[in-house]
Amino acid sequence: MFEPSSPPSLPPPSVLKDEVDIVIPTIRNVDFLEKWRAFFEPYHLIIIQDGDPSKIMKVPQGFNYELYNRNDINRILGSKASCISIKDSACRCFGFLVSKKKYIFTIDDDCFVAKDPTGKEINALQQHIKNLVTPSTPYFFNTLYDPYREGADFVRGYPFSLREGVPTAVSHGIWLNIADYDAPTQLVKPLERNKRYVDAVMTIPKGALFPMSAMNLAFNRELIGPAMYFGLMGEAQPAGRYSSMWAGWCVKVISDHLGLGVKTGLPYIYHSKASNAFLNLKKELKGIFWQEELIPFFQSLSLPKECNTPQQCYIELSKQVRDKLGKVDDYFIKLSDAMVTWIQCWEELNPPPSSSQSQPFSLPLPTLEDDVAAIILSNGSA
Amino acid sequence: MFEPSSPPSLPPPSVLKDEVDIVIPTIRNVDFLEKWRAFFEPYHLIIIQDGDPSKIMKVPQGFNYELYNRNDINRILGSKASCISIKDSACRCFGFLVSKKKYIFTIDDDCFVAKDPTGKEINALQQHIKNLVTPSTPYFFNTLYDPYREGADFVRGYPFSLREGVPTAVSHGIWLNIADYDAPTQLVKPLERNKRYVDAVMTIPKGALFPMSAMNLAFNRELIGPAMYFGLMGEAQPAGRYSSMWAGWCVKVISDHLGLGVKTGLPYIYHSKASNAFLNLKKELKGIFWQEELIPFFQSLSLPKECNTPQQCYIELSKQVRDKLGKVDDYFIKLSDAMVTWIQCWEELNPPPSSSQSQPFSLPLPTLEDDVAAIILSNGSA
Repeated sequence: MFEPSSPPSLPPPSVLKDEVDIVIPTIRNVDFLEKWRAFFEPYHLIIIQDGDPSKIMKVPQGFNYELYNRNDINRILGSKASCISIKDSACRCFGFLVSKKKYIFTIDDDCFVAKDPTGKEINALQQHIKNLVTPSTPYFFNTLYDPYREGADFVRGYPFSLREGVPTAVSHGIWLNIADYDAPTQLVKPLERNKRYVDAVMTIPKGALFPMSAMNLAFNRELIGPAMYFGLMGEAQPAGRYSSMWAGWCVKVISDHLGLGVKTGLPYIYHSKASNAFLNLKKELKGIFWQEELIPFFQSLSLPKECNTPQQCYIELSKQVRDKLGKVDDYFIKLSDAMVTWIQCWEELNPPPSSSQSQPFSLPLPTLEDDVAAIILSNGSA
Repeated sequence: MFEPSSPPSLPPPSVLKDEVDIVIPTIRNVDFLEKWRAFFEPYHLIIIQDGDPSKIMKVPQGFNYELYNRNDINRILGSKASCISIKDSACRCFGFLVSKKKYIFTIDDDCFVAKDPTGKEINALQQHIKNLVTPSTPYFFNTLYDPYREGADFVRGYPFSLREGVPTAVSHGIWLNIADYDAPTQLVKPLERNKRYVDAVMTIPKGALFPMSAMNLAFNRELIGPAMYFGLMGEAQPAGRYSSMWAGWCVKVISDHLGLGVKTGLPYIYHSKASNAFLNLKKELKGIFWQEELIPFFQSLSLPKECNTPQQCYIELSKQVRDKLGKVDDYFIKLSDAMVTWIQCWEELNPPPSSSQSQPFSLPLPTLEDDVAAIILSNGSA
């Protein structure tokens, strides 16, 4: 399935092009797509235009895309649009809702094509797909990293019964140049650049949490999509820059519960510019304190056996957030409500194949799916 | 403390040379030391001569060493020598017993100096020391790997309260060329060579087990030494090639319990030759089956809070091995006894600073320490 990577001058392999959507939130423009043309052009894009919806967003010629601004989100979700953040890249999760594909790759508009140590351009999407279609190994650590990569395997002492692995839900890629540091680290290390290319992909063991970043992230929407909610951040909210952390903690505990894998490592993207550290500190301030109470909450979280879909897990999680984190700040009551609203939106826009069965929520919004279809027809270009 | 690595033609930095012993088990010879001269010569070696004790073991000129053969082990430990394996590299743990240093680096005699991707020879010992003197981060995964390395840090979303880390007990290095595969993998992939240099060190998260190999391994003897027992393998035992696995599982659960860290990754060594796969299959056979019952045992193991030294943890573990694994095979009853004997030897050879306090065992072997001193005097060369 995976040809050896070809030089960027040749047509790149467009692996699983009908099963992947690329979701891009942006408050600026998407000129960065020019740099990705060789790798992204065969795929479908879902662009979430954050900020002023009256601004005309120009998308470079030749890309196949849907574009949603705030007016679209409000029209499609109605009163439930409140669960989608404003003026924060957390709005990207709207793209996960409206996608109909199996896999999502989401990337920020200040991320460019990185080069490997030989100088070759890295096809990040292709690596993410490799990560997602091969199993994960959350139950035992392999010291030669991903055992499914060419030239690697399970080492001596790895139990044979665990070598089938489990389905992979998430592929978390990382960054060369500007690392994804918090404001305090940005302030104390303004000149630090990440130059270390670590040629590894690995499964994060069951029970271990990690700081997920959505700058360069892919996932299997069918397996974990409903848990990939980015919370309430940005405008009118007390916190920012914790949306992907929140999603990461939720996704990891739910993946662990459902027996799914989360990988991190390759691919790298080149992250071009650091955001303003002072502004970031303002945004992060409450999160820095809250985080210290959230981590023990997630580390000790237990989901009932009966929860065996990401939707069920997420609703149960929303209850525990209300019960246990409501005391930390009223914000978490609001967030708990938004988590439920998010799942309602998910169920409505992604009805199970036979819609009469097991649909835990029904919304009085029969036009949602029709609206999405209309948007695709009006914006799509090929 | 760490100068930038110097080319091998210059005198290498002999970091902490009075606090490290290099332990080498061998059934052949130690000619491989010539290749390590630039890096090992400043350090003290403890060589465990496995097999025929009447064979004269030649050690290249200029090294400072102690050499122990089976006769020495029997004389020093008396009847308790039964806990030290014969004709298996598991005998290396005798070197851990008799060392008086804070750190141990143990390496096999078919391991040579590897080169990094720039062609520079890797000072494996220096990297192990870096790993051991910097903290570990077992409670949260950092996506840029070791946050204490130059050019790296904790990423956004890493809780600030966890950034101090915990003391590092173990540094597990890996291998270029011949990977440490089990016999079935050797049989199906006879030509596979590990060529991937992964420039990373990472902490294995709390709760995750890993397959430890002792080919290229370092640890803090003060923190975890008593748990670094390699079991009963080789001659007169039903199993082989699981000694380091056994030690690794014990060490990891005890490190997790005591709040210590276990790192894996750099440094690489160059592993020269694969051992015979057919012979290995014979040795591994029982272990392949037993392992499937051992992993759930170790994964669900719980040690009482009162156990707060590696000795106490190890004695408690020996009881659980007897109770829960005795049913798997009588071998584990014998092993449980040997674990207790090992701790008795450890206590005797490593009495606490004030020997009247808290010494849970006393052996009728007052000459043990004197014997070791005699051996050092008779073999040492500088």
